[in-house]
Amino acid sequence: MIPRYTRPAMAAIWEPKTKFQIWFEIEAHACDAQAELGVIPKAAAEAVWARGAFDVERIDAIEAEVKHDVIAFLTNLAEHVGDEARFVHQGMTSSDVLDTCFNVQLVRAADLLIAQTEALLQALRRRAFEHKDTVCIGRSHGIHAEPTTFGLKLAQAYAEFARARDRLKLAREEVATCAISGAVGTFANIDPAVEAHVAAKMGLKPEPVSTQVIPRDRHAQFFATLGVVASSVERLATEVRHLQRTEVGEAEEYFSPGQKGSSAMPHKRNPVLTENLTGLARMVRGYALPAMENVALWHERDISHSSVERMIGPDATVTLDFALARLTQVMDKLVVYPEVMAETVEKLGGLVHSQRVLLALTQKGVSREDAYRLVQRNAMTVWQSRGEHTLLELLQQDAEVSAHMNRDELAGLFDLGYHTAHVDTIFERVFGTARDHMA
Amino acid sequence: MIPRYTRPAMAAIWEPKTKFQIWFEIEAHACDAQAELGVIPKAAAEAVWARGAFDVERIDAIEAEVKHDVIAFLTNLAEHVGDEARFVHQGMTSSDVLDTCFNVQLVRAADLLIAQTEALLQALRRRAFEHKDTVCIGRSHGIHAEPTTFGLKLAQAYAEFARARDRLKLAREEVATCAISGAVGTFANIDPAVEAHVAAKMGLKPEPVSTQVIPRDRHAQFFATLGVVASSVERLATEVRHLQRTEVGEAEEYFSPGQKGSSAMPHKRNPVLTENLTGLARMVRGYALPAMENVALWHERDISHSSVERMIGPDATVTLDFALARLTQVMDKLVVYPEVMAETVEKLGGLVHSQRVLLALTQKGVSREDAYRLVQRNAMTVWQSRGEHTLLELLQQDAEVSAHMNRDELAGLFDLGYHTAHVDTIFERVFGTARDHMA
Amino acid sequence: MIPRYTRPAMAAIWEPKTKFQIWFEIEAHACDAQAELGVIPKAAAEAVWARGAFDVERIDAIEAEVKHDVIAFLTNLAEHVGDEARFVHQGMTSSDVLDTCFNVQLVRAADLLIAQTEALLQALRRRAFEHKDTVCIGRSHGIHAEPTTFGLKLAQAYAEFARARDRLKLAREEVATCAISGAVGTFANIDPAVEAHVAAKMGLKPEPVSTQVIPRDRHAQFFATLGVVASSVERLATEVRHLQRTEVGEAEEYFSPGQKGSSAMPHKRNPVLTENLTGLARMVRGYALPAMENVALWHERDISHSSVERMIGPDATVTLDFALARLTQVMDKLVVYPEVMAETVEKLGGLVHSQRVLLALTQKGVSREDAYRLVQRNAMTVWQSRGEHTLLELLQQDAEVSAHMNRDELAGLFDLGYHTAHVDTIFERVFGTARDHMA
Amino acid sequence: MIPRYTRPAMAAIWEPKTKFQIWFEIEAHACDAQAELGVIPKAAAEAVWARGAFDVERIDAIEAEVKHDVIAFLTNLAEHVGDEARFVHQGMTSSDVLDTCFNVQLVRAADLLIAQTEALLQALRRRAFEHKDTVCIGRSHGIHAEPTTFGLKLAQAYAEFARARDRLKLAREEVATCAISGAVGTFANIDPAVEAHVAAKMGLKPEPVSTQVIPRDRHAQFFATLGVVASSVERLATEVRHLQRTEVGEAEEYFSPGQKGSSAMPHKRNPVLTENLTGLARMVRGYALPAMENVALWHERDISHSSVERMIGPDATVTLDFALARLTQVMDKLVVYPEVMAETVEKLGGLVHSQRVLLALTQKGVSREDAYRLVQRNAMTVWQSRGEHTLLELLQQDAEVSAHMNRDELAGLFDLGYHTAHVDTIFERVFGTARDHMA
Repeated sequence: MIPRYTRPAMAAIWEPKTKFQIWFEIEAHACDAQAELGVIPKAAAEAVWARGAFDVERIDAIEAEVKHDVIAFLTNLAEHVGDEARFVHQGMTSSDVLDTCFNVQLVRAADLLIAQTEALLQALRRRAFEHKDTVCIGRSHGIHAEPTTFGLKLAQAYAEFARARDRLKLAREEVATCAISGAVGTFANIDPAVEAHVAAKMGLKPEPVSTQVIPRDRHAQFFATLGVVASSVERLATEVRHLQRTEVGEAEEYFSPGQKGSSAMPHKRNPVLTENLTGLARMVRGYALPAMENVALWHERDISHSSVERMIGPDATVTLDFALARLTQVMDKLVVYPEVMAETVEKLGGLVHSQRVLLALTQKGVSREDAYRLVQRNAMTVWQSRGEHTLLELLQQDAEVSAHMNRDELAGLFDLGYHTAHVDTIFERVFGTARDHMA
Repeated sequence: MIPRYTRPAMAAIWEPKTKFQIWFEIEAHACDAQAELGVIPKAAAEAVWARGAFDVERIDAIEAEVKHDVIAFLTNLAEHVGDEARFVHQGMTSSDVLDTCFNVQLVRAADLLIAQTEALLQALRRRAFEHKDTVCIGRSHGIHAEPTTFGLKLAQAYAEFARARDRLKLAREEVATCAISGAVGTFANIDPAVEAHVAAKMGLKPEPVSTQVIPRDRHAQFFATLGVVASSVERLATEVRHLQRTEVGEAEEYFSPGQKGSSAMPHKRNPVLTENLTGLARMVRGYALPAMENVALWHERDISHSSVERMIGPDATVTLDFALARLTQVMDKLVVYPEVMAETVEKLGGLVHSQRVLLALTQKGVSREDAYRLVQRNAMTVWQSRGEHTLLELLQQDAEVSAHMNRDELAGLFDLGYHTAHVDTIFERVFGTARDHMA
Repeated sequence: MIPRYTRPAMAAIWEPKTKFQIWFEIEAHACDAQAELGVIPKAAAEAVWARGAFDVERIDAIEAEVKHDVIAFLTNLAEHVGDEARFVHQGMTSSDVLDTCFNVQLVRAADLLIAQTEALLQALRRRAFEHKDTVCIGRSHGIHAEPTTFGLKLAQAYAEFARARDRLKLAREEVATCAISGAVGTFANIDPAVEAHVAAKMGLKPEPVSTQVIPRDRHAQFFATLGVVASSVERLATEVRHLQRTEVGEAEEYFSPGQKGSSAMPHKRNPVLTENLTGLARMVRGYALPAMENVALWHERDISHSSVERMIGPDATVTLDFALARLTQVMDKLVVYPEVMAETVEKLGGLVHSQRVLLALTQKGVSREDAYRLVQRNAMTVWQSRGEHTLLELLQQDAEVSAHMNRDELAGLFDLGYHTAHVDTIFERVFGTARDHMA
Repeated sequence: MIPRYTRPAMAAIWEPKTKFQIWFEIEAHACDAQAELGVIPKAAAEAVWARGAFDVERIDAIEAEVKHDVIAFLTNLAEHVGDEARFVHQGMTSSDVLDTCFNVQLVRAADLLIAQTEALLQALRRRAFEHKDTVCIGRSHGIHAEPTTFGLKLAQAYAEFARARDRLKLAREEVATCAISGAVGTFANIDPAVEAHVAAKMGLKPEPVSTQVIPRDRHAQFFATLGVVASSVERLATEVRHLQRTEVGEAEEYFSPGQKGSSAMPHKRNPVLTENLTGLARMVRGYALPAMENVALWHERDISHSSVERMIGPDATVTLDFALARLTQVMDKLVVYPEVMAETVEKLGGLVHSQRVLLALTQKGVSREDAYRLVQRNAMTVWQSRGEHTLLELLQQDAEVSAHMNRDELAGLFDLGYHTAHVDTIFERVFGTARDHMA
């Protein structure tokens, strides 16, 4: 979590002030429930809400002495609340506060991640419809294969991030639990009704069975999911990096007029944002492993998970949040060069249509072997001519081919519409419509 | 995937024979759809089903020559089907077959994993109810904290593996898709209806938008989930390892009478099964990373994912399957020593009840500071006596304490029932009932 | 890198001020070399040294505008140096400064890590000699096996961290290189002599062949090594956690008299420091993966490594530094309970000697099968008596055994000296001596 | 370890037969040492060597019964050796055999990896000298930067794999140790001289201090190193994949004339070998994590490492061995297109020389700002002309530029020799010579 890759809203979730505010709310709601149960006086609960306050610096000073953060907080809280403070935290254990707070923070972080993914989806959708019919070459192994459209590429990204959003929602649910169950989770010193009340107030569900802690398989699934979402960020970032290569030049990150370094070498517009995203994805992925190792705590709990979570809690969510926002911005402003895409499709003299020609010849009754031989000899000439000849022209001149198909039929096989015929179908699958209602 | 850690049903999914059988079914169903569309003759589709067959060794021999597995398969298929074979695979690309097959295999693997998790849940449930009221010490940081029951420990494991099962179901859904969409996913040479038909027949859903391949974020989520489930396996295995320590001795893996090595050192029953599970969990976790790195393929596809999947497809599913089965067996047969558990609770002369005494004194109106002082001086004497004194006995003899509570009241504070009062509540949360209807 | 787990000396290496100071030194030394070559005026180089200065806040302000950290720095430097500043950085590329600086920082970080490992070794050595002859039980699988000494356990740790130190030295060497080689590493615009000069001045060696950047396999090896060292930290921390368990109680982390939370539950001294170390180890390990993924940069460089390094540079070194220091403190002050260790060895009534009895009987000519039967029947009685009988006593009463060995011979087999006979040999291997010259 | 990615020599190391042969040698050498010490009869040791034999299937059958591999082996060995077999393994523990054997296997595996890296280095060296002066464009961020030579790219790869070789040698040393130290490493039942003898005979060094096992930090370092080496494989593989892209076409994997699939689409030569290498690298990296988690065994040992090592021992070494061999083949046969490289350098009309022009103008006394303005306006025209104009031509026509430099001076700035001037220096650094003595 370094300033360079941090956005304020996500950072705020992890600030000490936020944490202590959540602690306060948990304790105060617990007091309400305890008062309702008659365990503590109603006046005590009211006093906590009325006079409850805390001071981060003061808590730090106390913690430096007592070496225990929850005790430091409670001590400072008591300084504000006064005598009734002795009813606060009754029957609870530190983990009740810490774990429930951590989950509140993760839920809020998930909400921001989901919202940012929605923003990304909007940008992808807009650009996808904008380029629904922008024909470009499809590549397998980095080699030209058959035509597709740039809109289809973006539709794929849209579908992938729609899955990412759904996964984030499930991840949010995983950690949306609350535990107020005491030292080993038996509710020995506190009624389960307190947990139910605090859970409801904090927007969580009670953890069905906690030990001292909320089980960490939930958090492992949460952080593993973030790693998968980050990997999707990397995929789209990698696509942009490829498209921006000097030799490809089909698209590039937006480069503001005032941005430094471009003019003496006008071609030197580097895809630094998407390269950066590639690196950030590596980090978010890397946090999944410690989260998984956190699951096997000893017996009812050990505290080895704590240092890990103090780091990856902020680091993973802040980094992914920043990455999603940066990717949104990149895709929103991506400069696309349809004319370069169009040229590129034709770059190989029509060789990308050879499969279709092959298919058409066999459909005309030519044996597979013969069809292959006919296409092959012309394709090879095109390839070796390095731009001088096109496949269509040679096929039209090939007597043996002409015997089966006339010039127009042949020309028809080089129609790009053949490759885009099902774009609407795919758009309907992905967006529920082939028409951009927002346009 | 080594024999030692492999079960036959899961291994069978990954055998060449199974793979080719799935390929055959994909191709044959595709022929049906193509015939229905009128693209190929109905007789051709019928011929494929009627005479379609393959021979693994023959395919291997062909592949050694042509260096392409799908072509080798089709060649061998043609040897059986005859002339009509030229209609097979029309308009399709190798990935259509490979990716759809891989997903079928993963879905079947997930089914086995889910079934085994269900079996584990049954064992955990049975043992949980068996030991619902078996009091044992709860530990935080490996140090005695407060009493709990062994049934609660198992209920926690049950809840965790119920989550694991649900995650596996979601993971299964993630990969239950089919793509028959051609070289760059545009359906240029094949109608989407073929995909729909094959998907339905193979128990999958059509991939909304594929490129040449099914997007690998799906598989990343699948394998990451397996890593999380394996981490839960490690947690329960670690619990058993701890309980079996010589000094703890509260439970141990079943050790068959004839099992070697025990008699001259009868204490030397090593928790080797659960140690083994700990190692296997490390492996399954480790496979999540390459799966995540597989997401960012270049453009419409590169084949870097393939080698990874050839390894982790079998390795991760076979290993987790074996681990779940071994854990089921361990938990099913776990030898539990309730009397040791009972002794252990009392081992510290009642110090584990000190928190409750503290709370009771304050409830009697003693100030927190005074209550603490009273408990502390007696607790310290118990601790230093190393087993000679108990806390109850000393408190009953402490005049200052007696001033607030009589002998019986004090004795009541050492009642274990206090700690187990909410066990039924928790069981109801976890199992939906506090009574074992199966008993 | 969060304050809680950060030590000032390591943190200082990663402060902006330090970074810019190193940048300044690199640029100034480069000027010297350029002046020496006659490429720039000597007066310019002198001016840089004489008036060179920078201001972190000012640089930040400039960077906010130009979006380029090196340009911002150079601009600010020029504000101090004046006109001669135009000779600074001539022929160099940003990566020349950035990569060389990063390596200087890593080298300094490695120096601190090595020094802290030396301090840990000193503590381990002192405690090892202190407990060279403190007999305790050795355990395999968590089960009592045969006696060893606590000093041997510490000697093992010493040997492991001596390897860790050596690995850190090699890791330091890996990254102790300097590159001043221009945009694609060809020295087109700058003489290799500049690189040689700067390298010597900064305590580095010239990178034999750089592209635009220093190759990242070096850094991958560096961070992977840190992950391995962290795993050794985890091993020793885990040992302490086990020894401190309530049931084991052979050693515990030092607990200062004033430390909170202990008195009412005097047994509740939690091994929180070593649990914390276990978590920190997970983090440091996790950073190895992104470092390895950083190796495969595109062509002569892409900048995806940068965000990763901005995070793991500080995070991995600061965390490991803190962990080593904390471990040093834990081991230095570890409270050891030799009497508990001694009791524990005898806990099983001498069963831990059964192997030796078996061996002795066979050496007396008893067949293996008979020897086994004799030991087994007595061992089983001891085990089932749960503390009432000892193996020695039963063997001495067993007529069939007595036929081969008399009481004294049998008693001799239970001599712990047998197990410690080679301790000196092992100490000589590890420490070069079996006598503590420092004592 | 699947046949597709396995070479026989490495696979042979991991065959049961090899393992048992090593076990036999360890036991037999131990007998020699024991006989020399007088612990067992010399005749017994001689009998072991004379009649010692084993049968893999028979061992498997015994293990199925006794569930212990070392006992099964010893039983089968006894069936061949006869009565003297009772002296075999005396005072040893199973781990003595297992761990020492595993290290012998890793050492042999390391030898193969080192040898293959040497072969790769030879290929890289040959190709580097072949293309020492083959000018090509250097790229940062995938964007054309300045010229370099293809030989320099290969020299970089050579230097990187020279480091890889050195790291593999260090990794080999890490695991080249032997332990014959008994149940908890105290040599209670066996003299250290036995260990020394076996170590010498097996080409290992005695482990200074073992517990029951050889410490796993050694293996963690070993497998982490393999992960780093695999990452270097990925880097070079990625370079080839980029060079083979349709738009780049500067080099391609060798494609045998008979290889399937090329003729109808002659451009469709996919870099499948290097894509495959990218995937294999992910796997080898992934094995580093479980190896690191293996370090923290409990007390003197637990067996959790064993399952991990049964998998990653073969999997990591076999996969890296295959990858290095495949990379050697790829680089050895790589088809290079110098003419495409030459064309590519000129593709941007000389813009890649703009930096040098800038530098030259300032050296002529033009202020930095003016120089920048002059270069910029011409560079921009070149860029916008999309191939019509070259920078040199425009500069020569620019009166303001001509005022400072004449046509020839300007032309001189576009001399590629400027960029290759230090190639010999770099080659001398990397290869110790700038002349290919092998040529």
